Amino acid sequence: MTKSAPKKSTFVVINRDGSLNIHRPKEHGKFFNDLYHYFLSIAWPKFFVILIGLFFISNLAFGLLYYFAGPSQVETPEGLSSLEHLIESFFFSVQSSSSSLKAIGVWSKSLVIAQTYLGMLMLVIVTGLLYARFARPRARVIFSENALIHEYNGQSALVFRVANERLNQIVEARMTLTATINRTSKEGETSRKFYNLKLENDYSPLFALSWTIRHFIDEDSPLYGMTEKSMTDEQVVIFASLNGIDDTFSQTITARNVYRYDEVIFNKRFKDMLLIKDDKVHINLKGINDLQ
Amino acid sequence: MTKSAPKKSTFVVINRDGSLNIHRPKEHGKFFNDLYHYFLSIAWPKFFVILIGLFFISNLAFGLLYYFAGPSQVETPEGLSSLEHLIESFFFSVQSSSSSLKAIGVWSKSLVIAQTYLGMLMLVIVTGLLYARFARPRARVIFSENALIHEYNGQSALVFRVANERLNQIVEARMTLTATINRTSKEGETSRKFYNLKLENDYSPLFALSWTIRHFIDEDSPLYGMTEKSMTDEQVVIFASLNGIDDTFSQTITARNVYRYDEVIFNKRFKDMLLIKDDKVHINLKGINDLQ
Amino acid sequence: MTKSAPKKSTFVVINRDGSLNIHRPKEHGKFFNDLYHYFLSIAWPKFFVILIGLFFISNLAFGLLYYFAGPSQVETPEGLSSLEHLIESFFFSVQSSSSSLKAIGVWSKSLVIAQTYLGMLMLVIVTGLLYARFARPRARVIFSENALIHEYNGQSALVFRVANERLNQIVEARMTLTATINRTSKEGETSRKFYNLKLENDYSPLFALSWTIRHFIDEDSPLYGMTEKSMTDEQVVIFASLNGIDDTFSQTITARNVYRYDEVIFNKRFKDMLLIKDDKVHINLKGINDLQ
Amino acid sequence: MTKSAPKKSTFVVINRDGSLNIHRPKEHGKFFNDLYHYFLSIAWPKFFVILIGLFFISNLAFGLLYYFAGPSQVETPEGLSSLEHLIESFFFSVQSSSSSLKAIGVWSKSLVIAQTYLGMLMLVIVTGLLYARFARPRARVIFSENALIHEYNGQSALVFRVANERLNQIVEARMTLTATINRTSKEGETSRKFYNLKLENDYSPLFALSWTIRHFIDEDSPLYGMTEKSMTDEQVVIFASLNGIDDTFSQTITARNVYRYDEVIFNKRFKDMLLIKDDKVHINLKGINDLQ
Repeated sequence: MTKSAPKKSTFVVINRDGSLNIHRPKEHGKFFNDLYHYFLSIAWPKFFVILIGLFFISNLAFGLLYYFAGPSQVETPEGLSSLEHLIESFFFSVQSSSSSLKAIGVWSKSLVIAQTYLGMLMLVIVTGLLYARFARPRARVIFSENALIHEYNGQSALVFRVANERLNQIVEARMTLTATINRTSKEGETSRKFYNLKLENDYSPLFALSWTIRHFIDEDSPLYGMTEKSMTDEQVVIFASLNGIDDTFSQTITARNVYRYDEVIFNKRFKDMLLIKDDKVHINLKGINDLQ
Repeated sequence: MTKSAPKKSTFVVINRDGSLNIHRPKEHGKFFNDLYHYFLSIAWPKFFVILIGLFFISNLAFGLLYYFAGPSQVETPEGLSSLEHLIESFFFSVQSSSSSLKAIGVWSKSLVIAQTYLGMLMLVIVTGLLYARFARPRARVIFSENALIHEYNGQSALVFRVANERLNQIVEARMTLTATINRTSKEGETSRKFYNLKLENDYSPLFALSWTIRHFIDEDSPLYGMTEKSMTDEQVVIFASLNGIDDTFSQTITARNVYRYDEVIFNKRFKDMLLIKDDKVHINLKGINDLQ
Repeated sequence: MTKSAPKKSTFVVINRDGSLNIHRPKEHGKFFNDLYHYFLSIAWPKFFVILIGLFFISNLAFGLLYYFAGPSQVETPEGLSSLEHLIESFFFSVQSSSSSLKAIGVWSKSLVIAQTYLGMLMLVIVTGLLYARFARPRARVIFSENALIHEYNGQSALVFRVANERLNQIVEARMTLTATINRTSKEGETSRKFYNLKLENDYSPLFALSWTIRHFIDEDSPLYGMTEKSMTDEQVVIFASLNGIDDTFSQTITARNVYRYDEVIFNKRFKDMLLIKDDKVHINLKGINDLQ
Repeated sequence: MTKSAPKKSTFVVINRDGSLNIHRPKEHGKFFNDLYHYFLSIAWPKFFVILIGLFFISNLAFGLLYYFAGPSQVETPEGLSSLEHLIESFFFSVQSSSSSLKAIGVWSKSLVIAQTYLGMLMLVIVTGLLYARFARPRARVIFSENALIHEYNGQSALVFRVANERLNQIVEARMTLTATINRTSKEGETSRKFYNLKLENDYSPLFALSWTIRHFIDEDSPLYGMTEKSMTDEQVVIFASLNGIDDTFSQTITARNVYRYDEVIFNKRFKDMLLIKDDKVHINLKGINDLQ
């Protein structure tokens, strides 16, 4: 354990996947909102597995209650083995109307009623969750892995590409590009500074296929005069943030990417994504990262 | 099949309906999101036909399972013909409570339960789909087929009209006009360039009937000095994008139109859409494309 | 019927309630979207009356089908009078499980199933409608009836007031003020021109009670030098449009008002809406229109 | 009761929690919208307690109607005591199918039907409420209790901090800072004036942890030259308003805080919220208010 202490400069380093390497305390949130968050964020198969699991566990629990309630509460056909009785109790729990058992006592009837209302509440919650999962706007926008710095029209420019993976068109798309650089004030406080990077085009009325974004590195740019070394030294991180309106769902969608100093490549160019094959023009989405 | 190879200049030609004539790979998306997308985008009659079809097919399938389950699983009244038995099995599948059949075995009871829960899940999903279909904001805004270039107040202007087909008023309407022109950089890269076209009025507090949009082609305009021929040569395409708030639903709505170089007409004027008949002022929405 | 023909200048006159006195053709829209629109826009009592009416009419119709289906389709207890049979048929239609009738034929069973699914579909649609009605953001913002023009800090200003009738706070409120004036171009086309009126404050971080809006009529204002007569002659109409975020529902809300030339009063001032009573400060929302 | 009359200057004083100390008339709103508002704003436990309470009260009421309907309407097993009869009537009300009672008259059958439809309506409304409660975007953003005024890079600045308590990232965050100062016009009208305070950074592409907001108090700032005394005299109140997009739910969220004149501290600095422990960088959200 004789590691050297982390340098001050590692403070706000951003991981290559865009996450922050800073440990934060666990969130002690409101239970229901967190559950909602959880059920929205998991994948569909897991979502259904959990639903079916909850269904079995809760009905097994209620089935055991009916099983042990006794004949004064639940009328049972004669001649059932213990296993058959248990299975029938489970069926009774799931759907009392199609079972050979019958609730005859106040306690068992109350259980039936409680189950009915719990069931309706579950139905209502699952309805809401399913709709919320469906309705969540999801852009499927891919960003080129690297941002490039090269000459364009004789001027140095930071360039990257985005492509729309869905067949939906994104209308009124806007791109915002922000550079983050660690700076220390005269008074000794270190903080992240944000610099807006002006774009050649920050608006596209229709983003259906691909879009090449360019920031000209002129004298007003915070990247002016930077080299690969100085970008690393100053831990330059560039946030690209896209928003627009999905034309099918009429919903606002967002997508974003982070280019860390080591993801910016100097003096390379992108290959064209448009190909001509069989007299037709094709777009090759997989070639978004291809450099010349 | 001795067509000439497509010229470079046909690359980003936009079809007259606003679609792009570029072939893209099929989207291999997430199954559920795609289904959702599909059920949102089809017309209402198709939507209901598919729902009813799914209902019949699934109940036929379950009905066959009950039919072949045998008398140890499903209690059947005596004296039924095979066809009657099959029909009863179908009815039992649809709604077990109003059938003369009765599930008596573990397997058939499990089937009944599975059906019940599948049915509820379907109900929940259909609820969500119906609501999502209803709630999707839909502008019914029509654009004039052509954009005109003529003198207005002694200055050359690009002019088109939009009309609101619905009785709903659109408040806080904003129009954005963008010209797309193919340009090639000194380094030899061809790309679409977007130019924002400044409007005489880009904001209307209340868009209830019709709205005439004008862009003055002054020296700052990328259209300055262009003729019909140069617009075709440079493949000028103009995107008009409208957004606003539907006053009935309080939802943001968008509409857009594309004017290709061959949809821009020089030196024509629109006819007035307002008519006086029986001492009353009428608006003639069908006359939106009428030229003088 | 010897009215004089309407003058050209009456073309875009706006009624005092903000509607336009222009006749437009009826909208021949998509049936389902229009129904949705209709059910969203009617008042709650009418909404429920229609729901209950649909319930009775549809069950009466199905009840008659069961009534006339005959004993081979619907098993009926003996000894029922015709009226009792009809009432039982209605009950059977509403809820087959609690009726003394029983569907025994293929035709009647199919009817029962159709009803069940229609009922579920209705339930699903009503769910959606109720939620859409509830969820629609509704500002309860009142505007002063009149806009005033008077001196403020020695400068001529157009002034009006808005008040928030709800207990909800509106955050990030923005007001947009637009003047509409009829203008005719050199080429003889008449059209409405929009002029944005700059406000002393167009943003309020928290709009909980009342807000006084001022536009200083300086030389850049289109209202500069206007008198009551010239405002009437030029048919000046001022649109005030407010948007903000309801703090309870976290939804964007909008409200607007129209001040026609004859609703602008010169050289009057508003009374203060704040009163001191019993050592406490009160706000008098009813006094929003009170002038000194 | 010999209090001194409130001074004019207490008019628009804002309480430390951001509420206004002005009495307003009760809102006489639309019943259904108010209920919706109420059910959205209460806490989850209260929400469920009210739901269960409504369930019991309504079923008790209907149970009593069945109890007193008499044997010609409701068929009751013989030998029940009054209490047993009452309990059975309650169970019959809750779920008629699992009860030993049976509705046989027109009146009791109508009651059963009314209950069925009321129950479905309730289910539908509860579905909507639950979903609306879940879906409401909720930021968990904490603001530092105090705003500080100190030198930063040699210039006087107003500084405060915000932190994101949730694990969700907030993208495209924007902060708006507004100072409210009571001013009296030459004509003697007192009103609140809003002044936008320009920020060093008003945009953050990714607000995951904490964000320090700075307004430089230069000559253009309405706070220029103010001291603790003059801020109190002029009742300066500063509104901080944050909006952004929750990355998990893709919903716009807002948060805000009010800094009253007595919550602004001169010549203090915040302690750093980042700590190094066990070679790892930690963020200490609880230290957001810690001053050096």
